[in-house]
Amino acid sequence: MDIAAGIDELRARLGRKRSIAFVPTMGNLHEGHLQLMRTARRHARFVVASIFVNRLQFAPHEDFDTYPRTFEADCEKLASCGVDLVFAPEERELYPEPQSFFVEPPELGAQLEGEFRPGFFRGVATVVMKLFNIVRPNVAVFGKKDYQQLMIVRGMVRQLNLAIDVIGDEIARAPDGLALSSRNGYLSAQERAEAPRLHQTLLWVKSQILTGMHDLALLEGRAIEKLKQNQWQIDYIAVRKQSDLQLPRLSDRDLVVLAAVKLGTTRLIDNVEFSV
Amino acid sequence: MDIAAGIDELRARLGRKRSIAFVPTMGNLHEGHLQLMRTARRHARFVVASIFVNRLQFAPHEDFDTYPRTFEADCEKLASCGVDLVFAPEERELYPEPQSFFVEPPELGAQLEGEFRPGFFRGVATVVMKLFNIVRPNVAVFGKKDYQQLMIVRGMVRQLNLAIDVIGDEIARAPDGLALSSRNGYLSAQERAEAPRLHQTLLWVKSQILTGMHDLALLEGRAIEKLKQNQWQIDYIAVRKQSDLQLPRLSDRDLVVLAAVKLGTTRLIDNVEFSV
Repeated sequence: MDIAAGIDELRARLGRKRSIAFVPTMGNLHEGHLQLMRTARRHARFVVASIFVNRLQFAPHEDFDTYPRTFEADCEKLASCGVDLVFAPEERELYPEPQSFFVEPPELGAQLEGEFRPGFFRGVATVVMKLFNIVRPNVAVFGKKDYQQLMIVRGMVRQLNLAIDVIGDEIARAPDGLALSSRNGYLSAQERAEAPRLHQTLLWVKSQILTGMHDLALLEGRAIEKLKQNQWQIDYIAVRKQSDLQLPRLSDRDLVVLAAVKLGTTRLIDNVEFSV
Repeated sequence: MDIAAGIDELRARLGRKRSIAFVPTMGNLHEGHLQLMRTARRHARFVVASIFVNRLQFAPHEDFDTYPRTFEADCEKLASCGVDLVFAPEERELYPEPQSFFVEPPELGAQLEGEFRPGFFRGVATVVMKLFNIVRPNVAVFGKKDYQQLMIVRGMVRQLNLAIDVIGDEIARAPDGLALSSRNGYLSAQERAEAPRLHQTLLWVKSQILTGMHDLALLEGRAIEKLKQNQWQIDYIAVRKQSDLQLPRLSDRDLVVLAAVKLGTTRLIDNVEFSV
């Protein structure tokens, strides 16, 4: 497995390859990331992963400085699942000057995650566009855990005419249901024991809707109450349409329940897709 | 010369070509455009031109509906200067859904042209990004008449890491100095006779600075006065640094004087680069 830190170096190593799958990451890799790599492996002859903690998508109060950097361990994991090339630029390689051109996502980017993380999706869309233009993949793989991010990337690719097939990969979970996340490492032992309640609560919302419960606001309220009773702080729990993450009408069949919540100081997100 | 109206058709015809120069236009082609095509011809083995009147860069009060469409004549001209492929999409091909992802240019995009044409550079940057992603050229050629546009495109390419060499081509002028423009066709005979005064005035500003005049605000004011006395309406006449179009300091050597002015209902732009 090769590692490139420079854009020119990366482009030279990619040469004229015709079948490239790309998985962008912020490092601190876990089994969820490795699943994305294996999915990428099945879709192209050459797999590129990137490791870059993108300051542009962190708000000033967020954990950019303390975000875990585990480069050596990450590279061992990537090599073990057949990644061919890792792009690991320094910040000054991707942002040699203050970024002033942005890919600006639509209204959707200001809802849910966007409401609680202003500028997040602009930062994501901009760095993903940059990475896409550097790597020029045929296929890109993103996890469904960041459900709204996947929708933003799909929208950007479609509306800005990138010739990239965006694949959404299923959420990897611990045996007790907790969605794998780099931020799970922030949880205390006690919090880690409590954490699966998030997924259980989303499954409960799904089951309520499948058994005919139509009052989504009431249901969201009850789910919030369940978590609050167990010391969770809630950013949102929301049932939305899969297609555009807007509020569902009675006729909508393909739904997703999304949540962003805090346990202590650790913010976790999760979601469950289902069809009624 | 081939003509493609569809994105898939265009991509199929481009195949795996490795040396592509691209010139985006809004049609109604004149000698200035053809000069861009010949420049493109010198920089690549395969030349693609596009003809697309981009609604996104017109303000509601501007001339989108009346902008001249002269497709047959345009294609004859393009064929005569060795263009290999014309991309001429319908609006629904480039905008099958309302555009909601935009490439947002920085502050520079709100000055000069941006001040008088709100949203113009966002519209330009977004459609140029789309066209770049469709054509995937190695080289793109833009005229220096739209000086600020050229700077915006260069900035976008650099900051969003497109692997495209952007070439700025010199302004093509009529023998009397008037910069060639599709909008010159809107001028009455009387206005056309008056029109060269714009270039003459910009040359006068240049000559004043070269002979040691340092009070740029005073100079701009005198230039504006000269034109106003001859029934011109002024959006701006501004002396700026070539490098970033910001206000020059005394130490700055490479300058450009830019103007946007109206003669009757026709808005003309022009500029003159010079070094002191």
